[in-house]
Amino acid sequence: MTDEPLVIFTPSGKRGRFPVGTPVLTAARQLGVDLDSVCGGRGICSKCQITPGYGEFPKHGVTVGQDALSEWNEVEARYDRIRGMKEGRRLGCQAKVMGDIVIDVPPESQVHRQVIRKSATTRDITMDPATHAYYVEVAEPDMHEPSGDFQRLSDALRQQWQIDGLEADAVLLGRLQPILRKGEWKVTVAIHKDHRGKPRIIDLWPGFWEGRLYGLAIDLGSTTIAAHLVDLRNGNVLASSGLMNPQIRFGEDLMSRVSYAMMNPGGDKEMTSAVRHALNGLAQAISTEANIDPRQIVEAVFVCNPVMHHLLLGIDPVELGQAPFALATSESLSLPASDLELGALHDHARVYILPCIAGHVGADCAAVALSEEPDKSEDMVLIVDVGTNAEILCGNKDRVLACSSPTGPAFEGAQISAGQRAAPGAIERVEIDPVTKEPRFRVIGSDLWSDDPAFAAATAATGITGICGSGIIEVVAEMRMAGLLDAGGLIGSAEQTGTPRCIPTGRTNAYLLHDGTANGGPLISVTQGDIRAIQLAKSALYAGARLLMDELQIDKVDRVVLAGAFGAHISPKHAMVLGMIPDVPLDKVTSAGNAAGTGARIALSNIGARAAIEAEVKRIHKVETAIEPRFQEHFVAANAIPHATDGFPELSKVVSLPDVSFNTGGSGGGADGGRRRRRG
Amino acid sequence: MTDEPLVIFTPSGKRGRFPVGTPVLTAARQLGVDLDSVCGGRGICSKCQITPGYGEFPKHGVTVGQDALSEWNEVEARYDRIRGMKEGRRLGCQAKVMGDIVIDVPPESQVHRQVIRKSATTRDITMDPATHAYYVEVAEPDMHEPSGDFQRLSDALRQQWQIDGLEADAVLLGRLQPILRKGEWKVTVAIHKDHRGKPRIIDLWPGFWEGRLYGLAIDLGSTTIAAHLVDLRNGNVLASSGLMNPQIRFGEDLMSRVSYAMMNPGGDKEMTSAVRHALNGLAQAISTEANIDPRQIVEAVFVCNPVMHHLLLGIDPVELGQAPFALATSESLSLPASDLELGALHDHARVYILPCIAGHVGADCAAVALSEEPDKSEDMVLIVDVGTNAEILCGNKDRVLACSSPTGPAFEGAQISAGQRAAPGAIERVEIDPVTKEPRFRVIGSDLWSDDPAFAAATAATGITGICGSGIIEVVAEMRMAGLLDAGGLIGSAEQTGTPRCIPTGRTNAYLLHDGTANGGPLISVTQGDIRAIQLAKSALYAGARLLMDELQIDKVDRVVLAGAFGAHISPKHAMVLGMIPDVPLDKVTSAGNAAGTGARIALSNIGARAAIEAEVKRIHKVETAIEPRFQEHFVAANAIPHATDGFPELSKVVSLPDVSFNTGGSGGGADGGRRRRRG
Repeated sequence: MTDEPLVIFTPSGKRGRFPVGTPVLTAARQLGVDLDSVCGGRGICSKCQITPGYGEFPKHGVTVGQDALSEWNEVEARYDRIRGMKEGRRLGCQAKVMGDIVIDVPPESQVHRQVIRKSATTRDITMDPATHAYYVEVAEPDMHEPSGDFQRLSDALRQQWQIDGLEADAVLLGRLQPILRKGEWKVTVAIHKDHRGKPRIIDLWPGFWEGRLYGLAIDLGSTTIAAHLVDLRNGNVLASSGLMNPQIRFGEDLMSRVSYAMMNPGGDKEMTSAVRHALNGLAQAISTEANIDPRQIVEAVFVCNPVMHHLLLGIDPVELGQAPFALATSESLSLPASDLELGALHDHARVYILPCIAGHVGADCAAVALSEEPDKSEDMVLIVDVGTNAEILCGNKDRVLACSSPTGPAFEGAQISAGQRAAPGAIERVEIDPVTKEPRFRVIGSDLWSDDPAFAAATAATGITGICGSGIIEVVAEMRMAGLLDAGGLIGSAEQTGTPRCIPTGRTNAYLLHDGTANGGPLISVTQGDIRAIQLAKSALYAGARLLMDELQIDKVDRVVLAGAFGAHISPKHAMVLGMIPDVPLDKVTSAGNAAGTGARIALSNIGARAAIEAEVKRIHKVETAIEPRFQEHFVAANAIPHATDGFPELSKVVSLPDVSFNTGGSGGGADGGRRRRRG
Repeated sequence: MTDEPLVIFTPSGKRGRFPVGTPVLTAARQLGVDLDSVCGGRGICSKCQITPGYGEFPKHGVTVGQDALSEWNEVEARYDRIRGMKEGRRLGCQAKVMGDIVIDVPPESQVHRQVIRKSATTRDITMDPATHAYYVEVAEPDMHEPSGDFQRLSDALRQQWQIDGLEADAVLLGRLQPILRKGEWKVTVAIHKDHRGKPRIIDLWPGFWEGRLYGLAIDLGSTTIAAHLVDLRNGNVLASSGLMNPQIRFGEDLMSRVSYAMMNPGGDKEMTSAVRHALNGLAQAISTEANIDPRQIVEAVFVCNPVMHHLLLGIDPVELGQAPFALATSESLSLPASDLELGALHDHARVYILPCIAGHVGADCAAVALSEEPDKSEDMVLIVDVGTNAEILCGNKDRVLACSSPTGPAFEGAQISAGQRAAPGAIERVEIDPVTKEPRFRVIGSDLWSDDPAFAAATAATGITGICGSGIIEVVAEMRMAGLLDAGGLIGSAEQTGTPRCIPTGRTNAYLLHDGTANGGPLISVTQGDIRAIQLAKSALYAGARLLMDELQIDKVDRVVLAGAFGAHISPKHAMVLGMIPDVPLDKVTSAGNAAGTGARIALSNIGARAAIEAEVKRIHKVETAIEPRFQEHFVAANAIPHATDGFPELSKVVSLPDVSFNTGGSGGGADGGRRRRRG
């Protein structure tokens, strides 16, 4: 044993020698060990709890004696009496090093604990949000050295927390004096400091404040607005909630909303007002769910497509509806929530909006890139976020490309005769027997297939109401696999297919999936028009992906990531039968869930991630599908199911598609290829 | 002659050689010659006009040929045709150097023209305001290199004007796109960039904007609010206006307003609202006077005492009413005018408030220091700004001290039996014949003395209504010189003084200055109570000055500067007879006019001055009169007229004061010395 005992921290493994009597917290700080403290080591906050280890540690080469730490002191005793401390715990600021010691920092005592684990990459997200609460002790005023209370608070924060250049607005300056005096010159200050701005006071409380600060991660979509309520101290998601975007009443898709703004003076203001109102309602609702006051929400991070981005900010989106699709501003924004009239949040709450990549490739796509990190990928990855527009990223650590493709709402069940949103009663899974051509299906709300004797009873409450997006993809793919649909997209007649389920509807045919009319339910069929809508959507998606692959001079990718809530429900096999995505081994198709929402949570939890995605967005190469002649070519070729020219060798290993053709020279021919829709 | 012609600029005398064909503007920029340009040399703004000189210039050693500049070009011809150009002028961006040339930059083509000349010091104030308008040409959007319009505007400003890190709020971002397109990618942008913040867009206009930006320099006093409206391009004062501070209804002096806030919950909010309302009215009125739209006012600079400072900011001033007189914030503030509800100004106008020196020594005193620059003075200067409180600065280039002294409102005519504010009809000058003891006087509104035969007619319209501050000082000093008042401050009886104008009033005497009762006017006399009020006020002022002199270990100063509107009207001799100010040669007493207002104009005109005064305020040593025991001693000793113990040798050279004493042991004794008032 030397004069200076050895201190070893786990799980970090960091170690160093310190003079006898050094507080554990001090040792941790000097070694850069992640040990929390809100009160700065004053024995008030109890955040610095550690677990000392005693006995033999051959792995570390030390023996820890029972007297390796100073004795339990009165601060610890008082804390334990009032609040209770777990067995074996000590306060890091009180316990002093007396001999060689092994100290474990439990997860709840780590500031930068991991909150979002990304299995696809090596990076884990740790808590380092923009807004923190700091406890400080402020010097009292001195007539001989007159300075403002705010200046002495700033000095204290600089000295005790290394926070420099503090700012505060007039309203908070007005609250400062009574709070300092009530707290007897001890105060807890919530400070917002992101990766580029000056630190600003958000709120303050007398003495040591035990409250919590919350943040919202919001994925503001054209159709739905989804939010996570996050505890900014530990990253816990307290509630997740969503609602329909009320702008839907101005137009279902983005282009119709841009048109509404163009045709109706002040229409953009109406839509801005509608979405801001909805966001306030969402903040209220999610707070009620989590049983907190929405005014404790001090930050909101937004990801959204460019049109939503502009309408949120109160910017007329008209330029986004016409070439050259110029954004008013493309870089990230950090601004007061009050600028966006988000009055439900804390008065001094801040908003961060991720950068847009291009006029059609928004902050939502940036959030997907932040979550999925194609720029860190060793292999070539294609990431598609399927919504009314599909955002597509393709690349690897060398280079990443992005584009947006106007798939339209067919994948969401819109523009489909029996289509509906994913809700109980909607058909979500379909199988068609290749021999009998009889279908069986499952509906949301029940795990039973429709050929199960208990199915009718299990679905009695919800009924069988329509087909949702994933059901559409499955039924069309199953029809193709069962020989009911040819490569050109034509549904065969009863005669051609040998099943009475193929019924004539005018000059084309439809496939009867379910007839509920006997029980007062709907007749659910897949019409030729439905097939055309799906063909347009999947062609746009595939053409966008191919355009990026062309630019990268590759003709296959190593893996495909399906992002978005929809992506989580798509069967990779069915998607590939349709030719939605390029051919890869089926086990190389994974779902990332709501990657945009995850990206928003990452940006809310870690300001370093904000800087990282801002830099990465500048590196991502944008491809504008609207002006690429090859997009049209790819689109036409992708109209066939799965494709007119591209082979799907990996798919062929598991599925063989019947070589049927129902084209009798009549109408309804396959490859019309016309762009019936632009930007949806 | 060499290959590179010699270019000499006057009046700067800067010279250099440039390749043939160099535009004059380019040469000026390379030499650091102050030659204006708003459009960046595109021949649009015409701000870079210069006057070439031809012929022999023996002083410069050059001969300038007629072909020393390129010929008049079509841009110049067009400008001359449309707007007209003065004889002999050229556009600096168009005229190219062809041979040796002498070029004069006329004052209107200088950006940094001198606008405020300070005779007391060597420094002149040049125009370098925080808000400028810049003309830029912005790159059009490119789908292949997508970036926001705001980012391309930022790039243009960086490249063309070296403005880095531009910011804009959401509202201005929303206006950007239509303006850029209307101006065909040419735009004029007003940008606020002070000495510490990031540059922010204030407004923008399509194309080259010819309009003007204005600023307000506001001296927000307890009694009056005075404002100058300044053209931010050239520093011209377009209008000056003032109004009563409406907070007077909550209390005449500062302490009574602090009391109002203490006694009435929400009282501080009422006073804040009142002053902000008045400021909006003032902005309207001054704009009407200058025939501009108040929404063209993009900046306001405030100087004020600490209580006004807090009430303007919406901060309860209660802490300023009790030791230790802690300011909520002491440093300068830069904030949006909307934070102060100054809705009459431009929507995005900014406010700058000078720093406070201490709890009793406000931004108004800082403004006096900025204007009078005691820190640059070679000799020892005492600066007193006389108002309801006196702000006192004392020092030289080595060290400057400051304090505030509670003189009360007597010097402003309040608490004086016949006192009134300076207005037509008020007695402002007084002389008393030392032999006859008869007075003569002048009133505001007439240049005649009251013994002039034409006086009655000249003052018939206004009447003779009372005595204003300067009149009070003169009459009391004259009474002392005429032997009507003794050193202790007692007015003699008719018997003691030999004049029936000394009339008994209860147990003391009064001096009858004017009896207007015959004409229905007032009886104007100076009572013993008036003398006591003046004694309290002047003792406080003198004691404050002496306290600073003690701290500096000096017993005399080299010169005295009287600041404030009141200071401009005080007769130095009478002030010194009263013992308001320390003894110096009378010609060393000067008036600085409204130095606080001048300081506000300087800070409005020049951002370097803001940085300078912020640094200087940190160096100024503050002395708190309320806690200095010696202040009481000095106060008591200063009660005598002119002083109980301090000699006035310089005064003695020009005035000999009769050695009278009217103290008969009765009441009304002189040196009560009690602090009857605190902070007014």
